Amino acid sequence: MTHEVAYEYTGVLEEAIGAEQGLTQKEIFSFQPEVDAAHQTLMAWRERGDVGFLDLPFTSAKQIEDITAKAREKSRGMEACLVLGIGGSSLGGKALRDALKTPLYNEMGKENRKGYPKLYFAENIDPETFVALLGMLRPDKTLVVVISKSGGTAETMSQFLIAMDWLTKNLGNSTANHVVAITDPKKGTLREIADKEGFETLDIPRNVGGRFSVLTPVGLFPAAVIGIDVKSLLEGAAAMAKRCESADLKTNPAYLNAVIHYAYDAKKGKPLSVLMPYVDSLLSFADWYRQLYAESLGKRFDRDGQEVFRGPTPIRALGTTDQHSQLQLYMEGPFNKVITFIRTKTFRSDVKIPASLSYKTALDYLPGHSLGQLNGFEQMATTHALRKNHRPTLTLSIEKIDAFTLGQLFYFYELQVALQGVLYHVNPFDQPGVELGKKLTYGLMGRKGYEEYAKELDQAFE
Amino acid sequence: MTHEVAYEYTGVLEEAIGAEQGLTQKEIFSFQPEVDAAHQTLMAWRERGDVGFLDLPFTSAKQIEDITAKAREKSRGMEACLVLGIGGSSLGGKALRDALKTPLYNEMGKENRKGYPKLYFAENIDPETFVALLGMLRPDKTLVVVISKSGGTAETMSQFLIAMDWLTKNLGNSTANHVVAITDPKKGTLREIADKEGFETLDIPRNVGGRFSVLTPVGLFPAAVIGIDVKSLLEGAAAMAKRCESADLKTNPAYLNAVIHYAYDAKKGKPLSVLMPYVDSLLSFADWYRQLYAESLGKRFDRDGQEVFRGPTPIRALGTTDQHSQLQLYMEGPFNKVITFIRTKTFRSDVKIPASLSYKTALDYLPGHSLGQLNGFEQMATTHALRKNHRPTLTLSIEKIDAFTLGQLFYFYELQVALQGVLYHVNPFDQPGVELGKKLTYGLMGRKGYEEYAKELDQAFE
Repeated sequence: MTHEVAYEYTGVLEEAIGAEQGLTQKEIFSFQPEVDAAHQTLMAWRERGDVGFLDLPFTSAKQIEDITAKAREKSRGMEACLVLGIGGSSLGGKALRDALKTPLYNEMGKENRKGYPKLYFAENIDPETFVALLGMLRPDKTLVVVISKSGGTAETMSQFLIAMDWLTKNLGNSTANHVVAITDPKKGTLREIADKEGFETLDIPRNVGGRFSVLTPVGLFPAAVIGIDVKSLLEGAAAMAKRCESADLKTNPAYLNAVIHYAYDAKKGKPLSVLMPYVDSLLSFADWYRQLYAESLGKRFDRDGQEVFRGPTPIRALGTTDQHSQLQLYMEGPFNKVITFIRTKTFRSDVKIPASLSYKTALDYLPGHSLGQLNGFEQMATTHALRKNHRPTLTLSIEKIDAFTLGQLFYFYELQVALQGVLYHVNPFDQPGVELGKKLTYGLMGRKGYEEYAKELDQAFE
Repeated sequence: MTHEVAYEYTGVLEEAIGAEQGLTQKEIFSFQPEVDAAHQTLMAWRERGDVGFLDLPFTSAKQIEDITAKAREKSRGMEACLVLGIGGSSLGGKALRDALKTPLYNEMGKENRKGYPKLYFAENIDPETFVALLGMLRPDKTLVVVISKSGGTAETMSQFLIAMDWLTKNLGNSTANHVVAITDPKKGTLREIADKEGFETLDIPRNVGGRFSVLTPVGLFPAAVIGIDVKSLLEGAAAMAKRCESADLKTNPAYLNAVIHYAYDAKKGKPLSVLMPYVDSLLSFADWYRQLYAESLGKRFDRDGQEVFRGPTPIRALGTTDQHSQLQLYMEGPFNKVITFIRTKTFRSDVKIPASLSYKTALDYLPGHSLGQLNGFEQMATTHALRKNHRPTLTLSIEKIDAFTLGQLFYFYELQVALQGVLYHVNPFDQPGVELGKKLTYGLMGRKGYEEYAKELDQAFE
């Protein structure tokens, strides 16, 4: 495979959008010493064994075969696979399903799914949709995959308890055959339960956090269940890893992208980073990106314990749809956004716009072009119009959407965000800000040891 | 019906989040004179006949009956209704479908849909999904609804030409029976075509722009096709209209919300407005809101022609899912966001978390509670945790999701945004920033009269 994701940044340069909003080449490359230092920090963490995602592209053939074999075996005869997981435990798998199949996948007939099961991600603990979803599935034909690194995620484990009840009532003793657990290799409640119940399990490496876990079994197992070529996915990631080996901004697009976003947020008052693919199948990828960016960079304390309250805000958008929703604001609103397009050069299917009408209309410029052509033209036109309005844009051009391309994109953003975190002088791998909410919830749920939190809430809302 | 949407703003007050981030009651209510003036401007525009959305809640019984009768008639025997429309022509209908049925609606069997057709919205001109979608539908069992106010929207009309070809090849002379056009009462290309072809048509009032059109046939017709109670929807809107009759901030929650957002953006450096429902079925409502807010308020020029580059940025988020994606940033990042929760008090279905395991685990605090209860607790806990981090929050509490509630919510936000636009001294009803992109696209497509734009792009991208 050779189709490289192309990274184009001419749309942020002074020549394109003027001195006030643009960056100069000199300005961009003046970050090289900072990048070198950040790279060394990252590599030192890696040496220490703390940054596992960097090694995932080089997962061994044996491990890959193990994952795909388990997926094949466990999903044999199944009509559906129901993934219980939230945040990093679902966003990667969803991105893979939507990109490499289609967002319409679960609505397709078995033949169009090539016999692979439907693949659902129950994320939210929304009783209405969870009840409806279980009502649509047959327990004897459903594989339940429960994913939680800590093993204690309240949302996921609640769904798990409900799903266990649903399976057991219908399957009795053979319930365990219908469950796969993906969790910590040794620790945690889910690991304990899996061992007791005899579930098939897969490990999430200790040193890979949820939002960096798409290339572990967290993303790979659900992908393999629906026949996605996970080997090619990892090869794509490996190709990007190789391309980004050196810290040199001239050759490393992930670091270059980190610098441009860092410069715009820290020096040019643009804290909003929009990721805007132009095909429906990549919208879930933008959702995945949104978690990676927000959780990794939004931090109260820096690595010296100084209060900094940093963090750019990611926004997911979709062309051409959001041209009719967000573009007005992007064109004319405050100069606080950097917009990254994902441009798809060739489509997996296309259709010519036909001359369906027998008389002249103002639409006569449309027939003869394909829908994909119009899509591409609109992306170009939007880019150019934004430039004329002095709005910085970046473009990731992809030859076509396949596993190899997706692997590149995942790794590109993971590496960018990791380095960007180091540049911000924060820890890109923690998420301390969500702990309080969890403890308060435990309090409300009456969990032992959290009585103080319940009391606090009682007082606040009385 | 009596269940009022409750508007709670204690989470923005100084008492809750401190003097630096909070507002005082005095500060909020000091905007009353500005609001009075803005209200008078809005009412003057209404007198002139320019602000049609204000009258939509009072659509006559006859008109409602006309829409529902047409929907019944045209969808009789149909398995699916395919809406061709983008932006304001799809977001309202989608919000209605997902909220009042479920986001899983199209995956349900006919019985669970109570015999009503599936309802698809083809928005993006993504050839891959559009081809896949047509491949899933039977032309003889599909009603195509084409929606474009101007009648010339390139995306929608391309899809229309493809759909016409698809229908005609299969249905020949009876094609027109399968098409409904919703467009300007007199003008435009779609109106011309509809008249020539003999399509059933419904009008979009001249003085209602796309993003304010959900309570016209644009939203009501697709809703009626799937059996949504549009009468109750309009009653909800009328109830909110009545509640917001006076410009008094003490009684008008829409104006109060406008003021709070305006104050935070204009005076407190918080240009990001997050709308975060806690149930899946309201996520599309947040998408609808996102267009309304962005297009109405993001403006380069104010009403005196001064360059202002204004406009807060709307963000849609979903609890509890985004607690595992965006919450870290909302808790710890820059103080640039105002977060509005939509809290659902009772659910249309719920499920108890069962004690599915026969041994003790760390999950023993979960059984006995319902999933809905956990959802509610997490929303409360998140609100309280945000307060403790000095983050402003607002809450719209709804008794339950039904048509009457949705009607209130739509009207609430439309009125808020209209007034907020007047406060910003911009025109909330235009979208001049998207014109250039359209012209550039016409140029690339070879449309006559747009050759200059093609040349400009050629030079830019050569």
